Amino acid sequence: MKLSFAALVAGLLCSGSAYADTLVDHVRGMTLNAAGNVERFNGIVIDRDGRVLQLLHEDDPRPSRLDFAADGRGAVLLPGLIDAHAHVMGVGLAALTLDLSDTTSLAQAQGKIRAYAAQFPGRPWIIGRGWNQELWQLGRFPTAGELDVAVDDRPVWLERVDGHAGWANSKALAAAGLTAATKDPTGGRIERLPAPRVVSKVAGKATGKAPAAPAALGAPAGVLVDGAMALVGKIVPPPRPEDRDAALAKAQELFLSRGVTAAADMGTSIEDWQAMRRAGDYGRLKMRVMAYGDGIANTVLIGGPGPTPWLYEDRLRLNGVKLYLDGALGSRGAWLKAPYADAATTGLPFLSETQLKNLISRAAMDHFQVAVHAIGDAANATLLSAIEDVAQTYQGDRRWRIEHAQIVDPADIPRFGQNGIIASMQPIHQTSDRTMAEARLGPNRLNGAYAWASMLRAGARLAFGSDAPVEVSDPFAGIAAAITREGADGQPAGGWQPQEKLTRTQALAAYTTGAAFAGQAEAKLGQLKPGWRADFVLVDVDPMTDSADRIRRTRVLQTWVAGKPVWELGKK
Amino acid sequence: MKLSFAALVAGLLCSGSAYADTLVDHVRGMTLNAAGNVERFNGIVIDRDGRVLQLLHEDDPRPSRLDFAADGRGAVLLPGLIDAHAHVMGVGLAALTLDLSDTTSLAQAQGKIRAYAAQFPGRPWIIGRGWNQELWQLGRFPTAGELDVAVDDRPVWLERVDGHAGWANSKALAAAGLTAATKDPTGGRIERLPAPRVVSKVAGKATGKAPAAPAALGAPAGVLVDGAMALVGKIVPPPRPEDRDAALAKAQELFLSRGVTAAADMGTSIEDWQAMRRAGDYGRLKMRVMAYGDGIANTVLIGGPGPTPWLYEDRLRLNGVKLYLDGALGSRGAWLKAPYADAATTGLPFLSETQLKNLISRAAMDHFQVAVHAIGDAANATLLSAIEDVAQTYQGDRRWRIEHAQIVDPADIPRFGQNGIIASMQPIHQTSDRTMAEARLGPNRLNGAYAWASMLRAGARLAFGSDAPVEVSDPFAGIAAAITREGADGQPAGGWQPQEKLTRTQALAAYTTGAAFAGQAEAKLGQLKPGWRADFVLVDVDPMTDSADRIRRTRVLQTWVAGKPVWELGKK
Repeated sequence: MKLSFAALVAGLLCSGSAYADTLVDHVRGMTLNAAGNVERFNGIVIDRDGRVLQLLHEDDPRPSRLDFAADGRGAVLLPGLIDAHAHVMGVGLAALTLDLSDTTSLAQAQGKIRAYAAQFPGRPWIIGRGWNQELWQLGRFPTAGELDVAVDDRPVWLERVDGHAGWANSKALAAAGLTAATKDPTGGRIERLPAPRVVSKVAGKATGKAPAAPAALGAPAGVLVDGAMALVGKIVPPPRPEDRDAALAKAQELFLSRGVTAAADMGTSIEDWQAMRRAGDYGRLKMRVMAYGDGIANTVLIGGPGPTPWLYEDRLRLNGVKLYLDGALGSRGAWLKAPYADAATTGLPFLSETQLKNLISRAAMDHFQVAVHAIGDAANATLLSAIEDVAQTYQGDRRWRIEHAQIVDPADIPRFGQNGIIASMQPIHQTSDRTMAEARLGPNRLNGAYAWASMLRAGARLAFGSDAPVEVSDPFAGIAAAITREGADGQPAGGWQPQEKLTRTQALAAYTTGAAFAGQAEAKLGQLKPGWRADFVLVDVDPMTDSADRIRRTRVLQTWVAGKPVWELGKK
Repeated sequence: MKLSFAALVAGLLCSGSAYADTLVDHVRGMTLNAAGNVERFNGIVIDRDGRVLQLLHEDDPRPSRLDFAADGRGAVLLPGLIDAHAHVMGVGLAALTLDLSDTTSLAQAQGKIRAYAAQFPGRPWIIGRGWNQELWQLGRFPTAGELDVAVDDRPVWLERVDGHAGWANSKALAAAGLTAATKDPTGGRIERLPAPRVVSKVAGKATGKAPAAPAALGAPAGVLVDGAMALVGKIVPPPRPEDRDAALAKAQELFLSRGVTAAADMGTSIEDWQAMRRAGDYGRLKMRVMAYGDGIANTVLIGGPGPTPWLYEDRLRLNGVKLYLDGALGSRGAWLKAPYADAATTGLPFLSETQLKNLISRAAMDHFQVAVHAIGDAANATLLSAIEDVAQTYQGDRRWRIEHAQIVDPADIPRFGQNGIIASMQPIHQTSDRTMAEARLGPNRLNGAYAWASMLRAGARLAFGSDAPVEVSDPFAGIAAAITREGADGQPAGGWQPQEKLTRTQALAAYTTGAAFAGQAEAKLGQLKPGWRADFVLVDVDPMTDSADRIRRTRVLQTWVAGKPVWELGKK
């Protein structure tokens, strides 16, 4: 069923008619209404402002005066999917830089890094991302020496797949001035080589007492975790504006190719924002972006005294601020109530409770929406308390967002239903992280892990996203995961913690009406309804009836934004 | 002849007509064409996009189908004036903060500062500007102690009228941590109290030899010059976004009230730019702004890979970068070829020749227009050399701008005609600075001072501005100064260095077609001509025939931008 745009469209142009519209007919159309019920239709009329004018059923008369008519030839037509948590610029930059996310061994990664460096001899730094020592079954972090083997003539800096650790070669460590004398910065950890003499001395003692003098630190091993990443990150040359423009174009292509017509950008820098505005100013902004500034400073610089208006006919808005309370589970940066099952640490918060409340208050004061990254159960509990506290002062419709809400103490889940808190979660994290999460948490702390159904039962608003580029932004893969809790390999059969599976409509709602609500766009996006923006996708799968496996392999045929086709399968 | 808008306008609304326009009739209209010739008309027809459709003469038939008609009742109609050098946000912030520009003695200033502080007891800092020790006939800079007399309970920071020096009280000096041990930073000077012991020792020696050890520095006296201003400036709380929004609104009102419909903003910060975009996004941008980013970093952050497009229907554009090569004459920061006549210094450049060329190249590479502040003759000569050098690589229509071009060695003036360099000058600086300039330069170096006519003779493009808030943005006062070289008091009779007087059309051209060309807007602004933006002013003076004194007292009756009245005398 490969259909080109030319084949799909039986063009019919009647320009000059003042009331003419666009019709997309002969589709198997479907939308969810605000109550979560499926509405079906088989034609859609769009006005010249790119809004839905009418949904048509089999026997409805078709409008006679049209600018443009397209024949959907029986394709399924869905509302444009909304990615409630992505890093838009990150998706584009990642696509344009060295990508290690497909490597399954250290040796393979080394080969790919070597080849990339040879391909770009003029680049002063080799920058990349996507490695995952878990996939390599390394059982430890890689080292600078193992990176030097691939590239030793210039600095190399490679971010881990989750963005919570970075791997430097010796040139990069030297450029950053890191030595054994460098202490771990607050909220971060420098992986160390063993410091042999002191270690042997301590090991020689059989007493439980700590030595009087602290053990000498080992030399940096190569990997820097969370807050320590900035030690190298800050000396990496930043992308130039033209790099960001290219990255934004690439990112849009990738989102649209998966049927995503709008995304929440979680951590927009002023540079990102300027690139988005350039795209808007020049008419190159095809998808819609709901931005959350990276911290207070970026947010205030972007928005000034409050959120921006919707710009470029609802294609761009700064909604609020993105804050980080803890790190990720994979790098053991997530902040847990009890120590990790596989390490003697609980992870650590990036902010004290007072700092957190102050930042939330500062944002809420000016009506910036607040979205806070919280992965561990301690982070979620602390954040819930902070929101409960601040919400007493900043009342009304605030739409507090907790990003990831990944590991939550079951005792805390009911608190999501209070204060209208939005659980902004990523189904694919569950299937990707399953084994790692079991290792990090042990068997007895999984009840509140990726607990989508419990969240809904507790009255939380659910919004689904991808965390791209950490995972591919593919809502169809997300829906398949959400309704099965099985990976693409069908494992574990019957689903992991299957009590947290969602229904099909719940899953689709989290990617449409739920994500629109989370992004303050429920009156414009997320549904196909007269007056709403005509953002939709034509696909070859019916997510209400086809198998999860078919859904996972959905082919997006066309993606429309504002009543115009902006991406099409097989067409550049 | 006080006319309210209601009186001027005989409203005639015929909505619904697809081809209807606006007519302003019964005016004494005048515009300069590109060749500098005066064209007269007595009616103007404007299309719905706010562009000039037609200029009408006495016997021309009037269009019959109109949206709107206004009766000019014989007022003079001129193209909107363009201020080629202003600090837009500075005008607004200055208008909203303590203004000392009208004080004529230290005691009067102290009283005004004391009263202002009492009026705003909650403000943690007292911020102001506009003092001028020359007007106070103080013969020296004021001191921190003299400011403590007015306010000693919190820090005070007051910028000099030219923005090239700041006056701090003791609380502000302490907050900045300035002591006798603080050295002068590069490009700046800390005014010092005498350091008695060392001075007396040296004074006691009759030998011409310098002492072996350098003299101890005196404690900071209160005034910080040029590069030293940042020592206090950096700890002053910056204006909040809402302060900038209020300032921009106030600035627009002030510009429009003087007939200025467009201004070049010379040193736009990212915060300023964001406020301008907010104004544009919310439809509050009434005047037009051609922005020059404050240094390379702001320019690249604002524009990205190059100048922005014209935004908001030609109301905002980032054209290029503003750089500073030296300081001002009043504070002896201007960089001269030979020492000042009244001090043993030549002033100093802020940048080495290599730095200057690198910055100009960096901007020109991405087609940012380059505007460099150069006041002293050494700064102008060095800048001319740098432009001549860089222009060999970056060819074509670059419109290099030299801002101020105030004191130029007559031998260097012909170089302005080469490489299409724009002399961006401020007539009122000449009348305000006359006595000070004579003191700074002595009698023999005035031939190239404020040398407008020589610049034109040399083939330079001339653009006139105000440097507001250093001076009031008042093009009519500027035209009067330009054609007389006399102050508002008529002194010196016959004009100072009268050979540099301009004709009336030359002066008007520098505020219209010349300033539009300098701002890359000559195809949109600066003339009233079919297709050009309908920006104009109705005034009670004919600058081609009335006396300079009448011109100086011009009353602006109405200011129109894009074919709509945006300011009117006597109406808030």
